[in-house]
Amino acid sequence: MTQPPEFDDTFRERLHDLLVWRRDVRRFRTDVLPQGVVETLVDEAILAPSVGYSQPWRFVTVRNPARRTAVYKNFLACNRDALEDYKGEQAKLYASLKLSGLDTAPEHLAVFVDNATNSGHGVGRKTMPETLPYSVVMAVHTLWLAARARDIGVGWVSILDSERVKAILEAPEDWSLVAYLCIGYPEEEHTDPELERYGWQDHDPQSSALLKR
Amino acid sequence: MTQPPEFDDTFRERLHDLLVWRRDVRRFRTDVLPQGVVETLVDEAILAPSVGYSQPWRFVTVRNPARRTAVYKNFLACNRDALEDYKGEQAKLYASLKLSGLDTAPEHLAVFVDNATNSGHGVGRKTMPETLPYSVVMAVHTLWLAARARDIGVGWVSILDSERVKAILEAPEDWSLVAYLCIGYPEEEHTDPELERYGWQDHDPQSSALLKR
Repeated sequence: MTQPPEFDDTFRERLHDLLVWRRDVRRFRTDVLPQGVVETLVDEAILAPSVGYSQPWRFVTVRNPARRTAVYKNFLACNRDALEDYKGEQAKLYASLKLSGLDTAPEHLAVFVDNATNSGHGVGRKTMPETLPYSVVMAVHTLWLAARARDIGVGWVSILDSERVKAILEAPEDWSLVAYLCIGYPEEEHTDPELERYGWQDHDPQSSALLKR
Repeated sequence: MTQPPEFDDTFRERLHDLLVWRRDVRRFRTDVLPQGVVETLVDEAILAPSVGYSQPWRFVTVRNPARRTAVYKNFLACNRDALEDYKGEQAKLYASLKLSGLDTAPEHLAVFVDNATNSGHGVGRKTMPETLPYSVVMAVHTLWLAARARDIGVGWVSILDSERVKAILEAPEDWSLVAYLCIGYPEEEHTDPELERYGWQDHDPQSSALLKR
């Protein structure tokens, strides 16, 4: 193909719907996903941009029950610890929030950045080295959208000790955890974030302001 | 709408095309973009996920010629400095690469993270505080895809001193630069990264491997 396809209004509207219905899912059905679907999602994810074409993303499916349990226990410990930062009504509300689907999601996918990769030969990373993990974040986001387009939900769990998760998964020394994802069919479908629905945080008007310089 | 729209095979194929044709553009036509298009892209971008619904992205359009020139000069200085890391043939190749479209892109958009935001009340950020800038990266990626769906190209310039750019733009103290974007109509359309086309970096097979744990 030498010319890009025509992206028309219908496609743009559907893409908008995809962004609206893409949610951070924590309530999963336990149904297993079709064979090969995680591989398909990873194939889409690696189309993401990366600094200097470094392609530093590394994907790890976590299916071993002992490892999955260890990650879940780490989440529970970190979440208990986080709860201590809140007081009164806010603490009650925090305790009632469902902040991960690690207990039910059929697939766990850990996504690391390979800090030692030589791919890209350092282009663009001298002044802003943080663009290496940022590249991995764009792969995660690509996977998220590709999943939603297949009616599959993704939830990003960050209430984890990333060094501990790295040890549980016996990941190579040069890798750092960027995201730990739960993947599966959602129990419910929503266009509003769960944290908004349960009264934790509303839309922040600052986030849509456009400053002029 | 209480049920998500049906995402069918046609949409999934077109979404795949979008990911394939989304490129880091550095060769822009100088034509101005239609009135309001940057605002439209920002409206799409803020549909991105964010840790604890913190929505920490802050957008700044840069249209003042003196500021734009100052940013471009900063890029040239940082790029000269980066060139010194390469020797021989690699240095020659590096010097020949076009690494930014700051000189021709009609729009410059700086995207910051607001480190001081209280939105989200810290949820998910205690153990992995890096998820705050990561949220901004997902907004950038969303904007990138929304632009490509409108035949508009985006290029992310990271060969910049982010503190200097922040000073040039007189950004609030609590903000940090995440991405400096060039936006405009591309001069050329490609499915392969420019760095691959010019022989700097090929596809890295490590990046598509799926480790099992």
